[in-house]
Amino acid sequence: MFALFALKDITKDTMTNTGLFITVEGVDGAGKSTPLSWLNQSLQAIGRTVVLTREPGGTALGEHLRELLLHEKMDLETETLLMFASRREHIAQVILPALARGDIIISDRFTDATYAYQGGGRGVSLSKIEQLETWVQHDLQPHLTLLFDVPLEVAQARLAKGRSQLDKFEQESMDFFQRTRQAYLARATAHPERIAIIDSTVDIEQTQIQIAAALQTHLNIAI
Amino acid sequence: MFALFALKDITKDTMTNTGLFITVEGVDGAGKSTPLSWLNQSLQAIGRTVVLTREPGGTALGEHLRELLLHEKMDLETETLLMFASRREHIAQVILPALARGDIIISDRFTDATYAYQGGGRGVSLSKIEQLETWVQHDLQPHLTLLFDVPLEVAQARLAKGRSQLDKFEQESMDFFQRTRQAYLARATAHPERIAIIDSTVDIEQTQIQIAAALQTHLNIAI
Repeated sequence: MFALFALKDITKDTMTNTGLFITVEGVDGAGKSTPLSWLNQSLQAIGRTVVLTREPGGTALGEHLRELLLHEKMDLETETLLMFASRREHIAQVILPALARGDIIISDRFTDATYAYQGGGRGVSLSKIEQLETWVQHDLQPHLTLLFDVPLEVAQARLAKGRSQLDKFEQESMDFFQRTRQAYLARATAHPERIAIIDSTVDIEQTQIQIAAALQTHLNIAI
Repeated sequence: MFALFALKDITKDTMTNTGLFITVEGVDGAGKSTPLSWLNQSLQAIGRTVVLTREPGGTALGEHLRELLLHEKMDLETETLLMFASRREHIAQVILPALARGDIIISDRFTDATYAYQGGGRGVSLSKIEQLETWVQHDLQPHLTLLFDVPLEVAQARLAKGRSQLDKFEQESMDFFQRTRQAYLARATAHPERIAIIDSTVDIEQTQIQIAAALQTHLNIAI
């Protein structure tokens, strides 16, 4: 009981004072959606205001760009620039204001996705991505990134089962997703202080336990 | 007659061998349109294949981005990124292929406009614009830039007379256009080897004479 009260006190302190930026990452079919809804509800249940958003998108302009990005053919560097244009608007209009209010903002994908998809998947050089990251974000980074990881066979089976129409990225080859997954895992290796790998092959309860542990370890929040 | 033949020989040599990239710049109302049509026709008259294009725009995706840029409110760094996203697509799909074919490509606005409008007008730092210029263009620069320059009163009077609906930029304040014009002139000072200032207060014949002189001086082409 003592330990539990101590945890609650710390949580309360974190709750009332600090805006937090959480990102959720993973290849298409990695199974982010259900755990993301659960995380949202769990944080609200402990009294936090949560802003749930996504990239590309998250603003009226960004959603417009999302449509272009997911459905129009374009040069791969154009695609990278549009991702960061959507991101810049998202940061200015949504993320920074939410952090200033002390909210928790959870974004379904952020810059790690650009390293994974445009970098790993499409072959844009990581240093060119890093230049745009610095240009757009300055020193803004997520406090915690949950990387949902599954073998590609599992991801592909989930995609085939769950969606009637696949977008431009979802239609990519297994090789593309293999490179994307590897780039995600390389990001996690390079940034262990921020990125927690969630084994997303297990059932929802086991996934929730891993998410709760990541929030405890990285943010000192108990859900 | 001898001099005329000599000029034609040089022109023919330039014509058959080299793609050329010409950009046309100036604040809204600077009077680019009529001289641009004349330049297009004059180059075709000496046997050149001309690709007439514009920024933002010039591709299907770019024209879509143009609509957003001219009519939607957005963060000024988002605006700058979208300009360069449109530009990257334009370079990849239109400009580089035209140069490879040996055509003359004339673009109604290019990167100098970003320095002038987003830099001078809106106050984005010139070094941040330069970073994106390098990211997107590598060492691609126009062979010649015609900068149509007029006092702002003339530009505003032309805008008021000629257009029923003004876009987001055309509706800006006199201060904005003053800063934009000054930034354009600063570009011309910094890059005299490439940028020719065309006094656009004079009549069409006098304007044409200046343009022809600029093509002769900078590109060794007689029109």
